[in-house]
This record gives sequence, C-alpha cells and structure tokens, in this order.
Amino acid sequence: MSVVEQRLKDLGIELPVPAAAVANYVPFVVTGNLVFISGQLPLENGKPAVVGKLGDSVSIEDGVRAARLCGLGLLAQIKAAAGSLDRVKRVVRLTAFVASTPDFTDQPKVVNGCSDLMVEVLGDAGRHARVAVSAPSLPLNVACEIEGVFEIG
Amino acid sequence: MSVVEQRLKDLGIELPVPAAAVANYVPFVVTGNLVFISGQLPLENGKPAVVGKLGDSVSIEDGVRAARLCGLGLLAQIKAAAGSLDRVKRVVRLTAFVASTPDFTDQPKVVNGCSDLMVEVLGDAGRHARVAVSAPSLPLNVACEIEGVFEIG
Amino acid sequence: MSVVEQRLKDLGIELPVPAAAVANYVPFVVTGNLVFISGQLPLENGKPAVVGKLGDSVSIEDGVRAARLCGLGLLAQIKAAAGSLDRVKRVVRLTAFVASTPDFTDQPKVVNGCSDLMVEVLGDAGRHARVAVSAPSLPLNVACEIEGVFEIG
Repeated sequence: MSVVEQRLKDLGIELPVPAAAVANYVPFVVTGNLVFISGQLPLENGKPAVVGKLGDSVSIEDGVRAARLCGLGLLAQIKAAAGSLDRVKRVVRLTAFVASTPDFTDQPKVVNGCSDLMVEVLGDAGRHARVAVSAPSLPLNVACEIEGVFEIG
Repeated sequence: MSVVEQRLKDLGIELPVPAAAVANYVPFVVTGNLVFISGQLPLENGKPAVVGKLGDSVSIEDGVRAARLCGLGLLAQIKAAAGSLDRVKRVVRLTAFVASTPDFTDQPKVVNGCSDLMVEVLGDAGRHARVAVSAPSLPLNVACEIEGVFEIG
Repeated sequence: MSVVEQRLKDLGIELPVPAAAVANYVPFVVTGNLVFISGQLPLENGKPAVVGKLGDSVSIEDGVRAARLCGLGLLAQIKAAAGSLDRVKRVVRLTAFVASTPDFTDQPKVVNGCSDLMVEVLGDAGRHARVAVSAPSLPLNVACEIEGVFEIG
C-alpha cells in the first residue's frame, strides 16, 4: 500500500469520489509536472455540505469544516490526476475563497481547515503558498471554494 | 490558413484586437511553455459591453455573453502571444470573477459562456481546470473578468 | 552589491523583513524556475498599515499605498526565495484583491501602486500579467492583498 494511503488510513480519512466535470471544463489539467485543479466545493456524498456565509449563518467552526472538505476534494483530484498520492512532490499554491459578509476578517482561521489537512496527510510536501480572501457569494451557496496547484514527480 | 483560424471562420467568430497594456503591466507573460494572460474584460470595440451585476441588472443570458466576450479576449491574447492559435496545446486553467449581489449562486452558468467558447474553438485542447467565484465589483463596472493560463508548444 | 539592491538603495526603498509563516502554509514555494508567493498584506513593521475598504473609509491614494506595501512584501519574499533580486527573470503574474464596497470600480488605479513598484525596481523584468478585482473583505481588515508568480534564473 502507498505510504500516503497508509497515512490516510491511519488518520481515518476517506477520500471522496473526485467530483466529475459538469460542463466544458475538467477537474484538473496536467502540464509538465504541475497539476492545476479546479475550484473544489465542500461536498459530502456529492452534495453541498456547508452553505451560507461566514459572519452570518456559518460559524468559524463550520467554515473550518468546509475548508477541510474542499481539501479532501483537492486530494481526491490530485490522486486521480497522479495515479497515487505518493507522486505528490509538493502542494504548490492554494487559493481559497470564503463566502462572507463584508465585515468578516477571519479568512485565515477558516482556510486553516484545508492547510492543516494537507500537512496532516502529506507532511512537509503539504506546506504551500496560500491566498485567502472573501467572496460575496459562491456556486451553490457554499461557504468556501479552494483551487490548487500541485507538483508531481 | 491555420486549422483553428479556419474553424473560427467556419463558426463566424471574429477575434477582437487584443487589448493593449494600459499601465505598468502587460497583456500576457510567457514563461517556459506556459502563458499567463491578464484578466480580460467583456469588451466590444475596446469598450465595456456588459456592465452591472448578476443578481441585479444583469441577466444570466447577458452574463453568459460577458463571459464569452472575456473568452474572445483571452483567445486574441493567446494568439498574439503564440503567433498562431495552432500552437495552443491546452487551456490549462481559467479563473472567472463574476460581479454579483451576495445572493447570486449561478456563477457556473455564467462562466460556461467562456468555457463553451474554448471548446468550440480549440476542441479537446480547450478543456480546462476552472475556478468560478463572485466579486462585489470589477474594473469599469463590468459583469465579469477572466484570467487564463495556457500551454503552448 | 547586486544591481537591483543598488537600484533599491538609489530609490531609497528599504524592503521589509519577509512576513513569516503563521500556520501550515509557507510564504513561498519554488517549483522549477517558478516561485509562487503567498498573498501579501499591506504591513508596516509587521502590522496592518492600511485597513478598511475602498469606496468607504480608504481613499484611492491610501489604496495605492496599500498596494505598494503588498509589493514590498512580494519583493522581500522573492529575495528570500531566490537569495538575490538579481535572479528575478520576470514578474510573471500578480493577482490583486482590493477590499471595497460594491460600487467601487477603480481597482486598476489602486493596484498600480504595486505594478509601478515592480517596474521601478526591476525594470522590464517587472512588467507582469495582472488580475485586479474586488473582495468584500480581507484578512485583518486590510485594504488590499496581492499574490504573485515569479520566474527566477
């Protein structure tokens, strides 16, 4: 069994089925040794699991959960792209959009839900450059959307 | 005539003059075989063609048109960058910002206006990773802004 | 002394200490000859220097200053990543998020504060592809956040 798969098992983390393409775009594109992954939403069983906005109906705790679910989506996609999580050399950059009211300023706390997952699962290879900002609204009214660039070897 | 130029002609699509740099930035930068293109606005004859916000004065239909105009701008820029559209190996990733009210959640429908154009013109090479989010407002009050990363060969 | 360091000195520009990682992410990741830098905030002595929103309490002039401070952060990080600013071959792409009210449409004027700095310091190598959009709010209530992709040689 792959080293990272074993770690996932030890952590009790099960990756979701990677979300399929729903239009004329695809979940990821590989170019050279970089993989660009489409914005992932906080889904459970393929359905939006955390909807609404931070600063309004969504607590920080639920925001963290949303970001973690986006991260599980990213891991599922990079596994599909690379064949195995062991081929991930580095999480290069994550850009996280948090749906929030205009007075919300704790985006970093929310996005840590995804950042922590990356390091939990991938160790130092999971440490990434990061962008965390708010958006006034996101597809399907989800609380968070996160895209990623990964390096594979 | 180039294969893709012929397809454009068959489709009756005319690319705009690529928008010029208006400050200390440029329309695109080539690094290795990647081309990073600046955020394109929905222009016609160099002027904003779709202004306002989704969820307010701009209908989904007009939003789709805005996204398509952004896509025409991207194609005009990648043609300028690569010399010929035939050199486009892949549309790698598009990030689309939709100007909207906080309750608008149909960003994907809007952005399909650009995604569909890419596949119409470039076929499978036009299938891209995608990020679609809202912004509270955009330059010149346009309804949509889309940036892109392309691979050329 | 490095050519670019000398130019910084001539211009009277002092780079800040690069902001440290504050969670499970890092200030930059190098992959091949590309460097992805985390979103930089307008800090002075490590503290938010321009807070609030454009279109509300923050003037265009202060927004420009905020964008310039983000740019100083980017230069400090790329220097830390590359060892010397002389290794910067190109500023590839900057994505700038301006915290603003929904009716603000002068994002480009604000972001020029960063774009102008890049060209001032790096000359033609500072000319970059650019994305400028609004966000309803940003971490620590800052007025601007800018991420960058750089090419080093």
